[in-house]
Amino acid sequence: MFPQHIIARKRDGHVLSREEIAAFVRGATDGSWADYQLTALLMAIFLRGMTPEETADYTDAMMRSGVVADLSNVPGIKVDKHSTGGVGDKISIPLAPMVVACGVPVPMISGRGLGHSGGTLDKLESIPGFRTDLSLDVYRAQVARIGCALIGQTKDLAPSDKKLYALRDVTATVECIPLICGSILSKKLAEGIDALVLDVKVGRGAFMKTKEEARRLAEALVRVGQAGGKKVRALLTAMDQPLGRTVGNALEVAESIDCLRGHGPADTMEVTYALGAHMLVLAGVSKDEASARAQLERVVSNGAALTKFREIVAAQGGDVRSIDDPTRLPQATLQRPLPAPRGGVVVDVDAMGVALAALRLGAGRAKADDTIDPGVGVSALKKIGEKVTSGEPLCVIHASNEPALAEARAMLEKAIRVGDTAPAATPLIHEVLV
Amino acid sequence: MFPQHIIARKRDGHVLSREEIAAFVRGATDGSWADYQLTALLMAIFLRGMTPEETADYTDAMMRSGVVADLSNVPGIKVDKHSTGGVGDKISIPLAPMVVACGVPVPMISGRGLGHSGGTLDKLESIPGFRTDLSLDVYRAQVARIGCALIGQTKDLAPSDKKLYALRDVTATVECIPLICGSILSKKLAEGIDALVLDVKVGRGAFMKTKEEARRLAEALVRVGQAGGKKVRALLTAMDQPLGRTVGNALEVAESIDCLRGHGPADTMEVTYALGAHMLVLAGVSKDEASARAQLERVVSNGAALTKFREIVAAQGGDVRSIDDPTRLPQATLQRPLPAPRGGVVVDVDAMGVALAALRLGAGRAKADDTIDPGVGVSALKKIGEKVTSGEPLCVIHASNEPALAEARAMLEKAIRVGDTAPAATPLIHEVLV
Repeated sequence: MFPQHIIARKRDGHVLSREEIAAFVRGATDGSWADYQLTALLMAIFLRGMTPEETADYTDAMMRSGVVADLSNVPGIKVDKHSTGGVGDKISIPLAPMVVACGVPVPMISGRGLGHSGGTLDKLESIPGFRTDLSLDVYRAQVARIGCALIGQTKDLAPSDKKLYALRDVTATVECIPLICGSILSKKLAEGIDALVLDVKVGRGAFMKTKEEARRLAEALVRVGQAGGKKVRALLTAMDQPLGRTVGNALEVAESIDCLRGHGPADTMEVTYALGAHMLVLAGVSKDEASARAQLERVVSNGAALTKFREIVAAQGGDVRSIDDPTRLPQATLQRPLPAPRGGVVVDVDAMGVALAALRLGAGRAKADDTIDPGVGVSALKKIGEKVTSGEPLCVIHASNEPALAEARAMLEKAIRVGDTAPAATPLIHEVLV
Repeated sequence: MFPQHIIARKRDGHVLSREEIAAFVRGATDGSWADYQLTALLMAIFLRGMTPEETADYTDAMMRSGVVADLSNVPGIKVDKHSTGGVGDKISIPLAPMVVACGVPVPMISGRGLGHSGGTLDKLESIPGFRTDLSLDVYRAQVARIGCALIGQTKDLAPSDKKLYALRDVTATVECIPLICGSILSKKLAEGIDALVLDVKVGRGAFMKTKEEARRLAEALVRVGQAGGKKVRALLTAMDQPLGRTVGNALEVAESIDCLRGHGPADTMEVTYALGAHMLVLAGVSKDEASARAQLERVVSNGAALTKFREIVAAQGGDVRSIDDPTRLPQATLQRPLPAPRGGVVVDVDAMGVALAALRLGAGRAKADDTIDPGVGVSALKKIGEKVTSGEPLCVIHASNEPALAEARAMLEKAIRVGDTAPAATPLIHEVLV
């Protein structure tokens, strides 16, 4: 099977066989295909598409391109959550301990932030000492011992995805549902999970800007995950304004701790409970969403979820004192409120605008090798629909230098708008796909 | 202008600007685009197409990626011919001296054979001593002095085409009319010509299998060549059976000499005269095709064309004695007739079958770095419609070893079929596009 014959078949709109797709993915992994052949096929796939069967074969080949974690030593149905990425999306941090505290193992391999979207690993690493670079053996042992590990992708997990994603990024072949499915699910299926809840973000601060696009992606993810033998559900959730009141790594960890104590921002609590409830149902420990939600609220109110988080932090080398005293988390040297220019109602908080301001402050990465400043970001963000008086802070900017502060401030002044009438409230959870 | 933004625009079906196309071609030439970005855009172009304006801009950028020969020192309208490639297509060799003998300069930069298709350079190099690797300066001086030079592509001529063609070859992006146009015309326009006659081959032994495909390519070539400021015509000519009675390098040179003496095979003479007549009309030395043809016949019958060929061969270091005594050309050690299995009429001579037999004998290249055996091939080929008696030779096989002979023989037995009734004659020249 010459690469150019496989490329020609997709170019001409044919359905590739499982063997042809396996040859392509193997070519990406072992270098037997040249990069210029990989990208020619990626573009042909982008423009010709893939059937559900092709996408499932692609995902399976990607998953098998590396090690598939064996968690058969861990009893119970192992459930993970994956988000397509948003602004202020710290949900994984309160969610995982809550679900584990309900008795469900959560093996979670997360990514880093890139562009406007933050990453769970970067947030967790703002906890002094917290390590995410655990080996798969340590990961497995920790999941068996305390029900959860929050680690980064290791080199031996779906290595073909790393190769192909890097090429897609520079050849305009990222925004393609079958390729996105393969990328997301190959890594998640290699974690050793039995079930997966997907949080597909929709809106200005999300990868998918419209509900139609997000639904197409969610449907494909559910179908391909189920074809891979997993229980899968997807929630379409709103990402027009940031989730919660913080954007920035240490700031989001502090807010996550608030959530674990039961007094996080309403939207963050709501999305966390919604995702958690579906995880508990898939794991078979709750009979329906309502009872699952009650269980989650119980482990929050009785402190079991926070205790579990403390256990995870301790297991991964983090300073547990920072959980009880978040002032021990990294802090920015400059903290300045952004006063409302007038009294009225907050009519808009543009997630993308806030994300780019946070990026300017150093909270994220414009390029993959940028370093992150853990203390900077935005806190005390007003939410759309909240009343403000003139001069009242719309948010607090956390910066490490004046030029960054000034630029971020100008960006935030545009992103957060005050008007006369609150816009109609929009739902946080748009849809659930089973 | 990031490569990925240009790629994304073509991917989404937009028309690229002249600047975007120039950036792409420059990226191929100077290495500022990675190969994997070039091939992603090539595939997007393959699937999305290019407008006539984009194709003209692409061709122009490719031409300007290297040296453009300046033949302004040569008086008169300089005309060349280009063929899309066929089997037994030795037309350039008798054609160029004929046209030059009529007073029209013919600067001709040719290619080598690859796959089933032969190359003018390989054929000429079967003349002992003949050199095709002249510098552009020597080429220019020779065209000025004797009206013609028959050379190979130099490194400084349209280098972007060399780069892009090599990538297209291994990424299934060859068969794309705008890309083919750019590849052919960038090199031809860089020769320093004023006018060009294109021989677009149609049929089983050609790149374009149907008249519709060939017409689309011919129309695009004419349009883009004219957009480049040149006088251009295209002829669609038949390539179902080989042209002439020989396939193989020295054998085709000998047949070309027969043509220059006026007694080449009827089809070869006909296509040579037809192309030559359009060249003379474009050059302004004949008022119409009929008078042009009379001029060509005159320089053949009075020996001026053969004298011009002798001059060219001498100028390029070739042994002119081999022109008057073709037995001085390389000869294969084994020469065996292929007897007709029965009496009747030749009902088929499959050009592709004969080409693959010649390739097996060593007359061509399966890969670009294969070496060619100049003496081998097939001669005395019967033409479709000719009567044969049982045992009469259908052709003579020229081989350098017995295994190759046996394999080629089996292939030729399938390619040349004898039956009862001659099929209806089909035209040699299908169409002329002006």
